[in-house]
Amino acid sequence: MSTPISRFPVPALQDLPDDVRARIMQVQEKAGFVPNVFLAFAHRPDEFRAFFAYHDALMEKPGGLSKAEREMIVVATSSLNHCHYCVIAHGAILRIRAKQPRLADQVAINYRNADLAPRQRAMLDFAVAVAERAHTVGEDDFAALRLHGFSDEDIWDIGAIAALFALSNRMANLLALRPNDEFYTMGR
Amino acid sequence: MSTPISRFPVPALQDLPDDVRARIMQVQEKAGFVPNVFLAFAHRPDEFRAFFAYHDALMEKPGGLSKAEREMIVVATSSLNHCHYCVIAHGAILRIRAKQPRLADQVAINYRNADLAPRQRAMLDFAVAVAERAHTVGEDDFAALRLHGFSDEDIWDIGAIAALFALSNRMANLLALRPNDEFYTMGR
Amino acid sequence: MSTPISRFPVPALQDLPDDVRARIMQVQEKAGFVPNVFLAFAHRPDEFRAFFAYHDALMEKPGGLSKAEREMIVVATSSLNHCHYCVIAHGAILRIRAKQPRLADQVAINYRNADLAPRQRAMLDFAVAVAERAHTVGEDDFAALRLHGFSDEDIWDIGAIAALFALSNRMANLLALRPNDEFYTMGR
Amino acid sequence: MSTPISRFPVPALQDLPDDVRARIMQVQEKAGFVPNVFLAFAHRPDEFRAFFAYHDALMEKPGGLSKAEREMIVVATSSLNHCHYCVIAHGAILRIRAKQPRLADQVAINYRNADLAPRQRAMLDFAVAVAERAHTVGEDDFAALRLHGFSDEDIWDIGAIAALFALSNRMANLLALRPNDEFYTMGR
Amino acid sequence: MSTPISRFPVPALQDLPDDVRARIMQVQEKAGFVPNVFLAFAHRPDEFRAFFAYHDALMEKPGGLSKAEREMIVVATSSLNHCHYCVIAHGAILRIRAKQPRLADQVAINYRNADLAPRQRAMLDFAVAVAERAHTVGEDDFAALRLHGFSDEDIWDIGAIAALFALSNRMANLLALRPNDEFYTMGR
Amino acid sequence: MSTPISRFPVPALQDLPDDVRARIMQVQEKAGFVPNVFLAFAHRPDEFRAFFAYHDALMEKPGGLSKAEREMIVVATSSLNHCHYCVIAHGAILRIRAKQPRLADQVAINYRNADLAPRQRAMLDFAVAVAERAHTVGEDDFAALRLHGFSDEDIWDIGAIAALFALSNRMANLLALRPNDEFYTMGR
Repeated sequence: MSTPISRFPVPALQDLPDDVRARIMQVQEKAGFVPNVFLAFAHRPDEFRAFFAYHDALMEKPGGLSKAEREMIVVATSSLNHCHYCVIAHGAILRIRAKQPRLADQVAINYRNADLAPRQRAMLDFAVAVAERAHTVGEDDFAALRLHGFSDEDIWDIGAIAALFALSNRMANLLALRPNDEFYTMGR
Repeated sequence: MSTPISRFPVPALQDLPDDVRARIMQVQEKAGFVPNVFLAFAHRPDEFRAFFAYHDALMEKPGGLSKAEREMIVVATSSLNHCHYCVIAHGAILRIRAKQPRLADQVAINYRNADLAPRQRAMLDFAVAVAERAHTVGEDDFAALRLHGFSDEDIWDIGAIAALFALSNRMANLLALRPNDEFYTMGR
Repeated sequence: MSTPISRFPVPALQDLPDDVRARIMQVQEKAGFVPNVFLAFAHRPDEFRAFFAYHDALMEKPGGLSKAEREMIVVATSSLNHCHYCVIAHGAILRIRAKQPRLADQVAINYRNADLAPRQRAMLDFAVAVAERAHTVGEDDFAALRLHGFSDEDIWDIGAIAALFALSNRMANLLALRPNDEFYTMGR
Repeated sequence: MSTPISRFPVPALQDLPDDVRARIMQVQEKAGFVPNVFLAFAHRPDEFRAFFAYHDALMEKPGGLSKAEREMIVVATSSLNHCHYCVIAHGAILRIRAKQPRLADQVAINYRNADLAPRQRAMLDFAVAVAERAHTVGEDDFAALRLHGFSDEDIWDIGAIAALFALSNRMANLLALRPNDEFYTMGR
Repeated sequence: MSTPISRFPVPALQDLPDDVRARIMQVQEKAGFVPNVFLAFAHRPDEFRAFFAYHDALMEKPGGLSKAEREMIVVATSSLNHCHYCVIAHGAILRIRAKQPRLADQVAINYRNADLAPRQRAMLDFAVAVAERAHTVGEDDFAALRLHGFSDEDIWDIGAIAALFALSNRMANLLALRPNDEFYTMGR
Repeated sequence: MSTPISRFPVPALQDLPDDVRARIMQVQEKAGFVPNVFLAFAHRPDEFRAFFAYHDALMEKPGGLSKAEREMIVVATSSLNHCHYCVIAHGAILRIRAKQPRLADQVAINYRNADLAPRQRAMLDFAVAVAERAHTVGEDDFAALRLHGFSDEDIWDIGAIAALFALSNRMANLLALRPNDEFYTMGR
């Protein structure tokens, strides 16, 4: 009755390769439900594996950016790309990780007026630059981040997260990927 | 003396994890040189693995798009993103795969006037839509491709290649990734 | 401690003209709190009176558009203008009026993928055209609405609501108007 | 024979509510003709009242901006919005109020090259920012105005006039509102 | 006391090559004054000769477009380029050639609402396409003009006039070329 | 069999006026082939004469810019305009004049990362500003060039070359002008 999860076929769990199914079971155990991106990407197991490997490499590793800050980058750039799935799903994660129930909506609409530290605003300025005009990103942009204490590894992280969600947003829009209802209220 | 390969540190081959080094040796054997993207991404082995896994999943698999057509998508969208590395490197691959020495330059400048079949022009219209306005891609865009005989799996391929290079172009611009000199003349 | 309501002075209730204060008391009684837009605009009583008269003339009058549909227009166009206050406050009202807790977030991010009827999507296409390119709105745009059964008076309503919030969004951004915390969770 | 005043019905004077008709008679007495905006908006008396109340609250009140300066804001921003009625009608008023017959055309085409004082150019920079990118207007924009001696109340005026004509331009384009022939030559 | 004619040196008439001076005397005799573009371009006699030869080749030759229609193209595209000199000077010529005192202002602000024939509106749609997105002009654009009876030679004329003023507008803005006061009132 | 040179008729050499044919023979003698722009423009001898006179006045005269630098301006701005002919043909000339086989491709894709001196990057910043936003070019832009030692005559040259190719790019796109095969490999 409602809109389907994806414009493309969504496989049944039992038809999936073991490792893909295992990953899905694991996230279900942790979250209590299976985020639709896992089901929709499972239509292409090789892309599924590469995508989540890339995601984990940036979003789960240790580093100078807090996990909440990484989610801010996702929400701010996904909103510019009008990505329904990413804003709703990562907005929920941001609320939980930042423990600020109103932050995700603020960052999605206009991060310039959000309740952020100046360091975080500079981080989002850079992320948005990578999302929208990466070919003009240059020494001035790097210098602005260094002023706030970001290291070169942090700068790679900020840019790479914006780059990964440039991919992710386009895939979600290509698929018309539907966010799970659960995400809308998590962490509010 | 010349511009460095990347704005970020480039590791020495002997310092790399075995699988990363093996992949690099393999491409060197095949191409006769190591494309700089391998060296620059090796600074982050986990991202290296995910990126090339994603690349292979889309660019090397069987499917309805010829390998030359896939490279057309890369060149057309990378040019819109002003990505120095991707246009030069994938332009070379396109010349070789299409066996048309002038095609890559044409596609990079304005695919609408390039020596392409109508089916290929429709394919690039869709790829450019995903690159620039994925949030408005809808049934009309899908229908235009189906008129040219593209299947739904082909459409996923077209969109996913545009999406992957949305990531790749932003990373290459973030790193100011320098193309190898060899690419400029290959296949001309 | 938190961000102020407005970049400009916010008057005390007792210093306001009687009619302005009465209007504020009335909304407080109905909503249980005073939406910050009333306090911030009260800095200029004449503009306050004109703004809310305009608002009521379009949003409260009878007509062919349901009240939920009017709020859809507000949310869709305010989101394009990155107006923090309007998206949060009218998103809450939309949730309540449409009795659909997820609709406001969908419309704010990308109304093209929202759970809307085709008639409502056409309505938002027109509203967005007025918001972004009113000078090219012409017979084709009118005809597209008439196909969905909208009357000329409905078309005026759609365009006029988009026009009023073109003003409202710019004022809220000029003032850095802060939404009340209550709005974030109303109707979820 | 010529283009109609509005795409929507234009009421006869005798059918109007008394206060609306009185306002129209008053402007006719002063100007020698009835500007078409009064006739076209009279189709919706409540919106008529709110619109002109808003207009008078900003354009007729005392304040730090001269009346000519307020008209400069109207002409510069209305031109960016390609609003036929507002550029022609307020261009005439600007010529008269500034007593400079060539200024309105200059401001409409490119205020950066117009015969203006630096203070006025800064004022128009801010007004154009509110018209085109209000969500990024921040402390730097405010500081640039303060350097030229503008008070915070002046800044509200500049931004609010730009905001009001964001509404007005969209309404005039929605209605295809036709300027009176008289405006084209007044004050030249 | 007033703004200079050009940001660059303006030569004295007696210092000019004979043919350049002769051309200037000729236009002065015809118009009653020397349009500033002649004085400013005379700083570079070779460019002066080429520019006016190009101008005459398109604007003075026989052909399917009336001289008023050619000026419409100049005014519509120069306005999009915010070219002070070209809109004012060619607006005056348009008023005179079309014998319609209000047409130039209408075309400059929004040709879609101007008092034009459908054929002329189609002509300006094409001219604006060449001015703003020539790389996407294709068979559809040509077909739209042929529907209105334009020949291929007419289409070259329309596109070439738009192209010439793409040059002219940029030069006038580079020079901050000031229109003569006479142009503002001619033909009103 | 292949795409035609131009969308418009291309005259036979023997049908051309003597001076036009002489110019074509001269370039053929020098280059070893006739660049297609000469054949396509010969359809309109008066425009042919004016165009090449303008070209020579800027590209062949003595001055502060080297001939390679002038070609950089052509390639950078023609690429932004997606002009197939100009990027390919002038890319070839740039390779030859700069004696750097990779420079033309770099400048076409993203001059900001090309192997250029800071003075040349500033020159291209200004040229691109004239190509894309000439109406906002002002004292700051002039000052940035003077810092690198450019004289006012040099600045005229930079801006005028960008302006001439604003025309040239639009004409080539209007004609769908096809570059000669020879250009693709010259100077590599």
